[in-house]
Amino acid sequence: MPNSILDPLDYEIVRELQEDGRRAFREVARNLSVPEATVRTRVKRLQDQGILQILAFTNPSKLGQAKLALFFVSVAPQDHDRVVDTLGRWSEVSYLSTTLGSADVCVQVLCRDDESLWALQQKVRSLPGVEEVRVMQEVKVHKIRFTIPTVQSTEE
Amino acid sequence: MPNSILDPLDYEIVRELQEDGRRAFREVARNLSVPEATVRTRVKRLQDQGILQILAFTNPSKLGQAKLALFFVSVAPQDHDRVVDTLGRWSEVSYLSTTLGSADVCVQVLCRDDESLWALQQKVRSLPGVEEVRVMQEVKVHKIRFTIPTVQSTEE
Amino acid sequence: MPNSILDPLDYEIVRELQEDGRRAFREVARNLSVPEATVRTRVKRLQDQGILQILAFTNPSKLGQAKLALFFVSVAPQDHDRVVDTLGRWSEVSYLSTTLGSADVCVQVLCRDDESLWALQQKVRSLPGVEEVRVMQEVKVHKIRFTIPTVQSTEE
Amino acid sequence: MPNSILDPLDYEIVRELQEDGRRAFREVARNLSVPEATVRTRVKRLQDQGILQILAFTNPSKLGQAKLALFFVSVAPQDHDRVVDTLGRWSEVSYLSTTLGSADVCVQVLCRDDESLWALQQKVRSLPGVEEVRVMQEVKVHKIRFTIPTVQSTEE
Amino acid sequence: MPNSILDPLDYEIVRELQEDGRRAFREVARNLSVPEATVRTRVKRLQDQGILQILAFTNPSKLGQAKLALFFVSVAPQDHDRVVDTLGRWSEVSYLSTTLGSADVCVQVLCRDDESLWALQQKVRSLPGVEEVRVMQEVKVHKIRFTIPTVQSTEE
Amino acid sequence: MPNSILDPLDYEIVRELQEDGRRAFREVARNLSVPEATVRTRVKRLQDQGILQILAFTNPSKLGQAKLALFFVSVAPQDHDRVVDTLGRWSEVSYLSTTLGSADVCVQVLCRDDESLWALQQKVRSLPGVEEVRVMQEVKVHKIRFTIPTVQSTEE
Amino acid sequence: MPNSILDPLDYEIVRELQEDGRRAFREVARNLSVPEATVRTRVKRLQDQGILQILAFTNPSKLGQAKLALFFVSVAPQDHDRVVDTLGRWSEVSYLSTTLGSADVCVQVLCRDDESLWALQQKVRSLPGVEEVRVMQEVKVHKIRFTIPTVQSTEE
Amino acid sequence: MPNSILDPLDYEIVRELQEDGRRAFREVARNLSVPEATVRTRVKRLQDQGILQILAFTNPSKLGQAKLALFFVSVAPQDHDRVVDTLGRWSEVSYLSTTLGSADVCVQVLCRDDESLWALQQKVRSLPGVEEVRVMQEVKVHKIRFTIPTVQSTEE
Repeated sequence: MPNSILDPLDYEIVRELQEDGRRAFREVARNLSVPEATVRTRVKRLQDQGILQILAFTNPSKLGQAKLALFFVSVAPQDHDRVVDTLGRWSEVSYLSTTLGSADVCVQVLCRDDESLWALQQKVRSLPGVEEVRVMQEVKVHKIRFTIPTVQSTEE
Repeated sequence: MPNSILDPLDYEIVRELQEDGRRAFREVARNLSVPEATVRTRVKRLQDQGILQILAFTNPSKLGQAKLALFFVSVAPQDHDRVVDTLGRWSEVSYLSTTLGSADVCVQVLCRDDESLWALQQKVRSLPGVEEVRVMQEVKVHKIRFTIPTVQSTEE
Repeated sequence: MPNSILDPLDYEIVRELQEDGRRAFREVARNLSVPEATVRTRVKRLQDQGILQILAFTNPSKLGQAKLALFFVSVAPQDHDRVVDTLGRWSEVSYLSTTLGSADVCVQVLCRDDESLWALQQKVRSLPGVEEVRVMQEVKVHKIRFTIPTVQSTEE
Repeated sequence: MPNSILDPLDYEIVRELQEDGRRAFREVARNLSVPEATVRTRVKRLQDQGILQILAFTNPSKLGQAKLALFFVSVAPQDHDRVVDTLGRWSEVSYLSTTLGSADVCVQVLCRDDESLWALQQKVRSLPGVEEVRVMQEVKVHKIRFTIPTVQSTEE
Repeated sequence: MPNSILDPLDYEIVRELQEDGRRAFREVARNLSVPEATVRTRVKRLQDQGILQILAFTNPSKLGQAKLALFFVSVAPQDHDRVVDTLGRWSEVSYLSTTLGSADVCVQVLCRDDESLWALQQKVRSLPGVEEVRVMQEVKVHKIRFTIPTVQSTEE
Repeated sequence: MPNSILDPLDYEIVRELQEDGRRAFREVARNLSVPEATVRTRVKRLQDQGILQILAFTNPSKLGQAKLALFFVSVAPQDHDRVVDTLGRWSEVSYLSTTLGSADVCVQVLCRDDESLWALQQKVRSLPGVEEVRVMQEVKVHKIRFTIPTVQSTEE
Repeated sequence: MPNSILDPLDYEIVRELQEDGRRAFREVARNLSVPEATVRTRVKRLQDQGILQILAFTNPSKLGQAKLALFFVSVAPQDHDRVVDTLGRWSEVSYLSTTLGSADVCVQVLCRDDESLWALQQKVRSLPGVEEVRVMQEVKVHKIRFTIPTVQSTEE
Repeated sequence: MPNSILDPLDYEIVRELQEDGRRAFREVARNLSVPEATVRTRVKRLQDQGILQILAFTNPSKLGQAKLALFFVSVAPQDHDRVVDTLGRWSEVSYLSTTLGSADVCVQVLCRDDESLWALQQKVRSLPGVEEVRVMQEVKVHKIRFTIPTVQSTEE
């Protein structure tokens, strides 16, 4: 059992959905030999608790004009929460996390072109408390697939 | 129309799924006033072309022990494709992209604890062609939601 | 056709002038089998639109005392436009662009000697909004020749 | 007189062409009160000596798709001349100089899109003797105009 | 209970010794209302398991000539264990840990003077697998006292 | 004699305690052929002068949840003493020194988990005068043992 | 003739003194076949013009306790002259120059020990306009001898 | 007495010469009330021991063309002595020291112009064992005067 928040059945259900986010609950239920209602109830609970999200991801490398980039943002400590709150509401922001290391916040943005990327960077730098923004462009996305770490890692 | 690969209907369908990755095709069809079969066919085609993915994301900040981190990897040019290929097959890797800037490859990994994170970093550094690995830990994920950039950005 | 702003004939005319900026319009017209007046009109229009410039470049490596250097300038976002405007009016500035990455503005300057280079750097640093200036001296210019990118790159 | 290679008349002629690279020799001659043949001969000599070049520059900011970027390349000393020679023959390279400071060679390139920019960077990194390539994208060119430094700088 | 390896009594005993490393077992036993033999047995077990060490620390700031410095060492992954093993046997090394971030190994050394510090740095750099050594001198030690983190941190 | 503050007997006593911090004074006295009272008096004096400390160190690598990290803190000169004073009183701080080089203060902290480590970093950054905090996590402690440098180093 | 400020005889005299700063004027005169008074007058003039200095240098590597270090100081442009003026009056400062690159002022200092080096660094950082001070310690001086560059360098 | 190698009289003599490197021994002797022969003997001994040097320094800022620069050289440990030995024999090298920090060797060079500075940098980089050379140009020398640190610093 990988962690105390998910019980073994939660864990199996999540694994099924990580293989295919739209797998029918009926199929998940059959695969795990539990009633469909159980699957439905558990997924609902995990979503309500913010543990599980079912996301539609469009690969920018496959779309003509869309540009994907990472912003690494240094923020004064007292402004961290407000900056995160602001960035989280921008439609261009596809991913947002608090980091520990050479930056405080990692932001992934999806823009139309170089000029809107530059404008967005200027806009982030203008937020009160933002001290520095470093930009890293993403040329191609190769994989996006989340998997809960298991007790016995598959890496060995 | 934001780009030439998605036609306006494709675009509307993707938008519906970006709001809720498991929204029933029937509901999408009703919202867009098209037959359900059209939605189903188009989603199938976008998935087959690698443009659209429906993902289950479990938030590590909500799970007790899981550690999320970003590796920024510098790779010799002739080894780039092979390194990407290798990393893409590891179960700990949740996200993988080719970048332009201070690193060549951006890898997001999900591990059980500090020691497996360290072991994974050592493993990446041992891949032939890898010149440097910088690590940035992610303490909390605030947002994960992809949206196709529109012609009229909402940022103004 | 490399881009939608230049039509194929514009493109051919520009190519002729990129080979020799003073090539007679008569010769360009003959090479492309179009009337001389067409060439003249089109060049005039491209220049008026700011797309084409015919420049005289004197190679500092061939002149005794002249020093060429690049300044990489970090500017606060709200001061970007004003700094660009100011630098653009200085006679020592031979090239000026907005950049995305480890600096915000790239400035090429041409000075008489080390001391005026130093004085110029101090002057840039004193502009309101300028946060940092990094200097890179250019010892020798090997090539200066702009070519519009083609659809089929010559690099393969 | 700014330097010993150009005599005062050379200097005046260059100044005329820096105002307009295609100014007719007749007009230059009239402005400077010298015979047209003198202007023609002197310009020819300065071009033959590699001191003067008349260039056609197309502004990438005005062209839809073209991407302009600077590569800062570190090269092992024994490979410097060969790398410069190779880069100078590539059609994507619009500017090439030897620098003193945090890089050895500065290369400006003009590409069609992000993917060809990335491919070009990989190609530069693969040249024997190249140790590092840093990339800085140029979003907008504001000025390109070379002026010989005068004895009395206009900066005071 | 802060962690599962130490039970509450272990934890209390360690706390007593963290206040004074030479506190008599009799006094510890009296403070915690347990038999002295229990204290003795438990301390012995914790020492045997490598969990607890009683250290004599001499403050270099109080000694005339001794120099204290930190070395941050980058090591190739396949050489990590051997380098750690070698450094751990040197008498000048007072502290040695594996780190995650901008270095792989952190080494604290205690030398007689600048010249032996320099010689030691050269010696570390000469170890096979060592890629880089950065040095940070310590001018004055203000505190050295380890405390097990509690469930309710005192920091709030 | 390594330095003028410790006389040869002090030095021998310290050496005995560096081998085992709880070695009985009787045993030290016997090993050095001096009266036990002499050992006791001298150790007392060295401790009172702040030269010698007997420390209990619990190895975080052996404890489940405890996280050890180094903070490298840049502090404005006028705030140095106050910052050192504040940090020295925090229970999470296990080691604190003034450094010369790329930081001003080196702080070792011991926390329960990633989130309290991040909170502690934010707290340090919020102290008046603190300009920057860099974090380096320690994954495993291999050695902790202080030894006074001898006149004849054992390193040759 | 290497430069226009020194005539060939000045140049020969300086060369003689660069071999031995205390060489008697009589010996210099004899070596160069000119009257001693000429040598004396010329040396006096070069010293009065600040071109020539005869310095006594004591090698810190040969003296027990003295510590030599370089400070690289970043200074706000408007404070440069005042900072240089202040530093130039400090007795610990043995060398002071204005630099172009990653710092603005280079200062060599000679201190008694680590603690006075640290105090001096803090003192420099406290000067108004000083933005950053980086320290590099000098362990051993191998050569100190200035030679005017000749037209034909001896390096080929 | 500042250090044990110079006795108080040595120290006073050195101080006299640091004020004026060519001060007559007779004058030094009179100032210190000792026989001239004593001064002469002691200066001779200090010079023979490599403790004292009398140097002629020509200020490059006062000479038209001469360029002064600092090279910070990283050298593999096993090549350090040979590199120092080689650099010490070059006529362009005016100062050479072994450093501890972000470089291993600090070299001051005096060149005729930018091109010979660049050539010299390339030559240093080509020496076996040299890993990196960073260049810092010196625009103006403000002070050069060495003073032995006293017991009571004048800085307080």
